[in-house]
Amino acid sequence: MNNFVFYSPTEFVFGRETEKQTGQLVARYGGRRVLVVYGGGSVVRSGLLQRVEDTLREVGLVYVELGGVQPNPIDTKVYEGIELARREGVDFLLAVGGGSVIDTAKAIAAGVPYEGDFWDFYAGTAKVEKALPVGVVLTIPAAGSEGSGNTVITKVEGLRKLGLRTVYELRPRFAVMNPELTFTLPPFQTACGICDMMIHILERYFTNTEEVEIGDRLCEGTLLAIIREAYKVKQHPDDYQARANIMWCGTIAHNGTCGVGSEEDWASHFLEHEISALYGVTHGAGLAVMVPAWMTFMASHHPEKVAQLAERVFGVPVSEDKEEMALAAVARLKHFFRYMGLPVNFRELGIEQPDIDELVRKLHENKGDRLGNYMKLTMDQCREIYELACR
Amino acid sequence: MNNFVFYSPTEFVFGRETEKQTGQLVARYGGRRVLVVYGGGSVVRSGLLQRVEDTLREVGLVYVELGGVQPNPIDTKVYEGIELARREGVDFLLAVGGGSVIDTAKAIAAGVPYEGDFWDFYAGTAKVEKALPVGVVLTIPAAGSEGSGNTVITKVEGLRKLGLRTVYELRPRFAVMNPELTFTLPPFQTACGICDMMIHILERYFTNTEEVEIGDRLCEGTLLAIIREAYKVKQHPDDYQARANIMWCGTIAHNGTCGVGSEEDWASHFLEHEISALYGVTHGAGLAVMVPAWMTFMASHHPEKVAQLAERVFGVPVSEDKEEMALAAVARLKHFFRYMGLPVNFRELGIEQPDIDELVRKLHENKGDRLGNYMKLTMDQCREIYELACR
Repeated sequence: MNNFVFYSPTEFVFGRETEKQTGQLVARYGGRRVLVVYGGGSVVRSGLLQRVEDTLREVGLVYVELGGVQPNPIDTKVYEGIELARREGVDFLLAVGGGSVIDTAKAIAAGVPYEGDFWDFYAGTAKVEKALPVGVVLTIPAAGSEGSGNTVITKVEGLRKLGLRTVYELRPRFAVMNPELTFTLPPFQTACGICDMMIHILERYFTNTEEVEIGDRLCEGTLLAIIREAYKVKQHPDDYQARANIMWCGTIAHNGTCGVGSEEDWASHFLEHEISALYGVTHGAGLAVMVPAWMTFMASHHPEKVAQLAERVFGVPVSEDKEEMALAAVARLKHFFRYMGLPVNFRELGIEQPDIDELVRKLHENKGDRLGNYMKLTMDQCREIYELACR
Repeated sequence: MNNFVFYSPTEFVFGRETEKQTGQLVARYGGRRVLVVYGGGSVVRSGLLQRVEDTLREVGLVYVELGGVQPNPIDTKVYEGIELARREGVDFLLAVGGGSVIDTAKAIAAGVPYEGDFWDFYAGTAKVEKALPVGVVLTIPAAGSEGSGNTVITKVEGLRKLGLRTVYELRPRFAVMNPELTFTLPPFQTACGICDMMIHILERYFTNTEEVEIGDRLCEGTLLAIIREAYKVKQHPDDYQARANIMWCGTIAHNGTCGVGSEEDWASHFLEHEISALYGVTHGAGLAVMVPAWMTFMASHHPEKVAQLAERVFGVPVSEDKEEMALAAVARLKHFFRYMGLPVNFRELGIEQPDIDELVRKLHENKGDRLGNYMKLTMDQCREIYELACR
C-alpha cells in the first residue's frame, strides 16, 4: 500500500426528495448569486429545474441559467459560462445534471477567478489555485464527478479531450442525490453510466501496488453490488432500491473510496477518450468496448490481477492457468455488458472501420510514449488493443 | 436503503512518516495556539510526542500539553482540559493517541466555547453548536474516532459511560495515520482494536433495512480484509503492509463508509459499555465477549443477517437452516478472537461472577426499556445475552 491522502469533503445528501434541500445547501455553503448549469431539455421537461430553482428563491438566492451543455462537454460552453458568470457577479455554480454538466460547471468555477485562458489548466500549463464553489443536483449516476475534484473537457479545435485533477479546489461542496430522478433515464444511458462506474473501479483495481487488500476488497464489493443491482434496474427501471444502490456505487467508485493506496492505471480511459473525441460516442459505451479488449491483452501479458477479479467477482474457479481465468472474466464481463445493451466491439459501437492510425496518433500526441501503470503500454501495444476491440 | 447523509470531510494523510506534516496541517486548518492531548507515557517514551511538537514549532505554533488521558476516558480530565484551554487561549486541539485521547480532545473542543457543563452534551440536555477544531495523530487503530463526529466519556460519579454524536462539529479536520507507529502496540491491544473495528462494522451490518446491497458489500469486504490482515499482524507485528491495511480498515469502519443507508443496531456496544464502566475492562475485549453472545441469541431469534454474514465472510455453505448457519458464524468468529488472544466469555475476561443484575439495572437506567434495532431487545432479553456471555 502506498502513502495516500483520502479527502472527500463533499456533503452527500442522498435519498427521496432530497432536491428540496438544494437552496438551503447552496446558502449554507456561501452561495448568494448562483449560476445554474444544465444540459439538454430533460431537466426542463421533467420540471426538475423549476423545482430546484424554486428552492433557491425560497431562501432568497438570485440565479442565472446556462443550459445546453452537451455530452462530451466542450470548451466553447465553458467560455460562455465564464463570461456570463463574470457579467452577473456569480459566486456559486450549481450543476443540475450528470457528469458533463458538472465538469462544465467545474471548468467555469476554475475559470472565473483566473486571468488567463481556462484551457491552461487542462493543458497542464497552469494550476488551479482558487475556484468558485460548486454544488450538484445529480441526475445521471455515471461519471462520479459529484464526488471528485476532476473534470474532463474537449477542445473543439483539434478535438482534444483532456482531464484535470485537483485535490481540493474543484470538489463539489455538496451533492444532492435522489435516485427517483434516474427512473426515466433511457436504458442505454443507464447502461453506459453503469459501465462508466465499473471502469472507474477497475482503473484503480488494476495496479501493481502490492498488499492493497482493503482497496481490493472495496473495489470487489462495489462491483458485486453494481452487477447484482444492474440486473434489477434493467428489468425494473423504476425499482427505487436498485436505482439507489447503483447511484451510490457511482459516487464511491470515484471519490477515492475504492482502490485506496494503489497506483492507478487509467489506460482504458485514455484509449477510450480518443474514440469519443473522434467519433462522438458515449464514453460509457466506448469503455464497454475498450476494457474487455484491454483485459484480453492483459490475459496473455500480465494476467494476475485480472485472474483475482475473475475469482472474487465473477466466481471463476481458481486454477493455475491465470490466463484462462482472466479470459473467463472477459467472457463474463462481455456477457454482462451485452445483457445491459452495451456494445463490446467497434462494430457494435457503430464504427465499422475505426481509423486506428489516427486513434494511435492522437493518443501519442496527448499522452506520450507510454500509457497506463499496470503495464506501461507502448503505442504498438495500444494499437494491438484497438485491434482486439475490432473482434 | 434509507435516506442518508454521507459526510466525511476529514483529510486523512496516510502512510510512512506522515507525522512530519502535523504542524503544516494544524496551520492549514487555522490553529495558532494548540492544546496537545495525549495519554500514558508511551508517546513520550517513543519520542513521538517530541517529534510532533517539533513540527508545531517549525511552523511557528504555540502549544501546551495535557497528558494522562486514561482508557475509558473520564470527565475529570475533560474539565481539566477545558480549564487549561481557556486559560491559555487555545484555538486548536491536537490529539496524539488513540480513541480515548481523541474523545477527550473532542469533549474539550465542545466544552471550551460552551457556558454550561460539557456533560450536558453527553446527557442529551444540550446540543453542540460550536467547537474548537480538532486534529489527530493516530497511534491506535481501533475506535475510528479519527474519522467520526462521535465521542464517548465516562462520568466518574455514578460510572455513567455515555456517547455523543455530531454530524459536523466534532469531526477532526485532519488525521495523520502512520502505520509504523502501531508496530509496538502490545498484541492484546492490537487484538482489542481489531475487535473494536470489526464490531463497528457489524453494528451497521445488523439491520432490518432492506436492499442495502452496497452497504452490505462494503461491510463484508472490510471484514474480509481485516480478518486476513489480522492473522498477518499476529504473526509479524512489524509487517508494515498488514498494519497499514488494518489501520485504514479501522477508519472506514466508523466514518460512515460501511453500512450506508441502514438503520444501525448498536445493542452490543451498549451491552458492553456497562461492562467496561463497571469492571474497567478494555472496550474491545468486552466486545469480543458480548458480540458472540448477541449473535448466539440472534441465531435462535432473528438469524437472517447473521446467516448472510456466515456465507459471505466466513464461507459457511448456504443451507435452509439459517440458525445453523448463524451458529457456524459464531463459532468461526470465536475461533478468530481466540487466535488473536481475546476473551470470548466473562470468565476469560477475568470476571468470574458478573453482577448481571447490576449490569441490567445500569443498562436500563442509561438506555431505557429497549435496546438495538435489528431486534428491539427487552431488558429480560439483554439479561439472557449477558447470561450467554458466561458460557
